[in-house]
Amino acid sequence: MKPTLKIIKIGGNVIDDEALLPVFLKDFAALPSPKILVHGGGKIATQLAAKIGVETQMVGGRRITDAASLDVVVMAYAGLINKKIVALLQKFNDNAIGLSGADAGSLLSVKRVHPEVDFGFVGDVKAIGTANIEKLLKSGFTPVFCALTHDGKGQMLNTNADTIASEIAIGMSENYQTELIYCFEKKGVLSDINDENSVIKHIDSRKYIELKKENIIADGMLPKMENCFYALNNGVSRVMIGNPEIISGSGRQFTTLVL
Amino acid sequence: MKPTLKIIKIGGNVIDDEALLPVFLKDFAALPSPKILVHGGGKIATQLAAKIGVETQMVGGRRITDAASLDVVVMAYAGLINKKIVALLQKFNDNAIGLSGADAGSLLSVKRVHPEVDFGFVGDVKAIGTANIEKLLKSGFTPVFCALTHDGKGQMLNTNADTIASEIAIGMSENYQTELIYCFEKKGVLSDINDENSVIKHIDSRKYIELKKENIIADGMLPKMENCFYALNNGVSRVMIGNPEIISGSGRQFTTLVL
Repeated sequence: MKPTLKIIKIGGNVIDDEALLPVFLKDFAALPSPKILVHGGGKIATQLAAKIGVETQMVGGRRITDAASLDVVVMAYAGLINKKIVALLQKFNDNAIGLSGADAGSLLSVKRVHPEVDFGFVGDVKAIGTANIEKLLKSGFTPVFCALTHDGKGQMLNTNADTIASEIAIGMSENYQTELIYCFEKKGVLSDINDENSVIKHIDSRKYIELKKENIIADGMLPKMENCFYALNNGVSRVMIGNPEIISGSGRQFTTLVL
Repeated sequence: MKPTLKIIKIGGNVIDDEALLPVFLKDFAALPSPKILVHGGGKIATQLAAKIGVETQMVGGRRITDAASLDVVVMAYAGLINKKIVALLQKFNDNAIGLSGADAGSLLSVKRVHPEVDFGFVGDVKAIGTANIEKLLKSGFTPVFCALTHDGKGQMLNTNADTIASEIAIGMSENYQTELIYCFEKKGVLSDINDENSVIKHIDSRKYIELKKENIIADGMLPKMENCFYALNNGVSRVMIGNPEIISGSGRQFTTLVL
């Protein structure tokens, strides 16, 4: 039987909360190994861009990552945020090692090509360095990934953190029974967007189709769900969505997704 | 017999030179493993501080690292510079993994305490995570260290890159025959500061005392030399000082230091 591997993704709501971040990381540190943490950006990159005077360029409602913006996210994600998280995990006796996709050749991507819009330095994941990541896990390290990949030609690229988490989970499914956990600001997938406690506890493929038909899963939740089922359809055992308390087990409500 | 391990430190003259950096890294990538790269900061941190409006504080001619300055160096060293180097090494098929001292618990330091001056977030190296670094080397990775350490309590600290290189070399000497190589802007230790080609090829302890007496080694070169002999006195096999060509072997002139 394959060993279980948890891949946990945290977003800006955890990273930007000075009080919550150490509490979450202490809970994460207490989880048994092997495990992987993936973090997004939060407000730090936006604030840094404003300070430096790098303007966010938008084309057709989509953010463009030009060279100056890429520098900002590399500094914020791989620098400030990643090292803050790693130093705290080390404090909590978790042997964390911070990684961008370039480090240990872990996340190879290809610069996005779009017929109309040049998104700039944005990468779509092409390959996961599963053998290298497994070496780190087997050495007792906890990989902490930021939302950056590389193209193998010396160029760093900006990549969505949710996607990185699911791609890592898929890649690692060959040798591990993988569980992908998304921590965000809500307790789970809600049946009533206005009721924080209306968490749908279990969603399988059939239920997912129903929820889409009934328009209960819509808007911003749709791509998140698509990402989850993409992972489930490609070898990930189960996906869980909930707030950060899902890690400590104190969060009694969360959503579990299976095929 | 212990395997040989090269620890190579590059300074701002390599990092800041857009043309030289890839040439140097290609040469470095061609060196056999195991090997470790340590890089300093260069102008990028200073430029970033200026852009953000973080002023360099000096007390009695010494630089103070306040919280804002620490953020700047974490962003520049662990973010921008480290990932640029790692992505280029990956391009040249060297399986680089970028590290701050917090990553893999590799460089533990203690915040500097001075009776008169509060240097801020500056760390003096206390312990090297040799077992963890060895695991990375044995997994086939090339560790790339930036000039940052951590205090084990969640705090990143700023530490001199020359010191980090010598402390790593000393720590790794238990299980490796270590060679410490400092790449800087000159061809080596010069007998005549005005003659770029007056490289002193060999310096041992006795010669070093002579050179100090004759005032040939003085000023800025003194702490560098003290650092080198400190390494030699603590298990490092030999230390070499030269310009970046020392790596490719095309630099015929450089200084070798032994006990």
